[in-house]
Amino acid sequence: MQIAMIQDRIVPAEQLDPAYLDRGTFFGDGVYEVVRSYNGKIFALDEHLQRFANSLTAIEITALDIADVRSRVENAFAAAGIADAKIYFHATRGSAPRDHVYGPDLKPNFFLTVTELADDSDDKAAGIAVSTYPDLRWKRCDIKSLNLLPNVLARTDAARKGCAEAIFVDDAGLITEGAASAFFVIAAGALCTAPLKANILPSITRKFVLRAANDIALPVKEESFTPDFAASADEAFIAVTTKDIVPVTKFDDKTVAGPGQPAKQTAGKLTKLLIEQFRSFT
Amino acid sequence: MQIAMIQDRIVPAEQLDPAYLDRGTFFGDGVYEVVRSYNGKIFALDEHLQRFANSLTAIEITALDIADVRSRVENAFAAAGIADAKIYFHATRGSAPRDHVYGPDLKPNFFLTVTELADDSDDKAAGIAVSTYPDLRWKRCDIKSLNLLPNVLARTDAARKGCAEAIFVDDAGLITEGAASAFFVIAAGALCTAPLKANILPSITRKFVLRAANDIALPVKEESFTPDFAASADEAFIAVTTKDIVPVTKFDDKTVAGPGQPAKQTAGKLTKLLIEQFRSFT
Repeated sequence: MQIAMIQDRIVPAEQLDPAYLDRGTFFGDGVYEVVRSYNGKIFALDEHLQRFANSLTAIEITALDIADVRSRVENAFAAAGIADAKIYFHATRGSAPRDHVYGPDLKPNFFLTVTELADDSDDKAAGIAVSTYPDLRWKRCDIKSLNLLPNVLARTDAARKGCAEAIFVDDAGLITEGAASAFFVIAAGALCTAPLKANILPSITRKFVLRAANDIALPVKEESFTPDFAASADEAFIAVTTKDIVPVTKFDDKTVAGPGQPAKQTAGKLTKLLIEQFRSFT
Repeated sequence: MQIAMIQDRIVPAEQLDPAYLDRGTFFGDGVYEVVRSYNGKIFALDEHLQRFANSLTAIEITALDIADVRSRVENAFAAAGIADAKIYFHATRGSAPRDHVYGPDLKPNFFLTVTELADDSDDKAAGIAVSTYPDLRWKRCDIKSLNLLPNVLARTDAARKGCAEAIFVDDAGLITEGAASAFFVIAAGALCTAPLKANILPSITRKFVLRAANDIALPVKEESFTPDFAASADEAFIAVTTKDIVPVTKFDDKTVAGPGQPAKQTAGKLTKLLIEQFRSFT
């Protein structure tokens, strides 16, 4: 590369900041995690670091030590001094002139932010609306990669419809997951969610939701289902690191309510029990 | 966002360079183009700018004027003073604290590089080897977006096999296109390539290849085909902006040759005619 241009300013190659040659920008060639703290303590950091390691391994970013990542997360969290914090971090394969093919010589770029979480008690109490969107994502959503344009388009579409989350529906007409969350319904006395395959992120919060269900003796069905099934379920919720369980009360403009039941605007009884049980983990 | 961390260095939010908050890195929320010059003249700039405009429109990046982009490309090309140049440019939606949902207030980031093209006459004369890889990409490959991790994985896999390009094969067992090129075979006296749908980039070079085929009275079949069909074709080639037509002589370790024909290590007769005809366009 001889010269570069940033906006309309020409920059000689040798003066270019490596941040502009990040493979994260050229290709989304990196992976990320989001963890949160509850009242000064990071929740499920081990699990998130393990998933981060799995994502790194899946795309062969090998030159990053997970013990170092742990230290960085803990140091940044301590420095921020925020009790209820959202910690985002990503690693990209490194900075180099653009070439799809990577060799072993690249040095990963690590980036992290700490943000104070907003109070979400209103959403937890009143529930949120969600809307469906075609699942346009790549075939390896089990890797938490930076290729998130479909998620951006889906969540922006949802926001325009007054919804807090987009729920992906695949070509077979089945719900996979939320654009930034796992999705659950409660129907016929069972907690239902799509099974973990390559098209689903192995959500950490999902794992704790299933543990909570077990603790309250709520049967679990890991089976895919349709939007119609979701809209007519007794209860529905999303699960996401930053907010754990948030009840869903509107699904594509339909009030979530079981057949024969009155429409309800608040979280159902079992969702409330799961929220309480989840709280005991944090 | 309160604090950030770059590698292991804590940075207060207000001191963070906006380059680190580029939505291109967080989400691949941007689109790109590659144009080249032949002997001091940029080839098909109008077509590339039109496709760039289409990609921007498709993901609703609206605050970038294509006339400005043209000026930037022309200014950078003139400043570089390279006769046979590769010009890469991308635009992302802008820099902001990470949030999937975008509003209208973001200012796009534009980035461009000019690089001298290597002489590719050896590849053109001897042909290249290609290998297949599962098409893991998202469902809108007609948008030239920065979500390119599957392409990175595919091309790195190909390079390890001694191949110059990866050819994507979809779930139905049909070839879509190369990881950074269009793919063609010549079989039964016709030029064959996959039809343009949402799973294929509307390649500019493809368009000129079809024009060249028309000029030499070679019939064109825009139909999908299998790797077996490709490996047993009479001729095969990739088409890509930076190299136009490059003959393929090995396909997944099989020598490309028609039934009953001797295996051949050089480009076939019709591919050579297409290369010559293409040269007349530049």
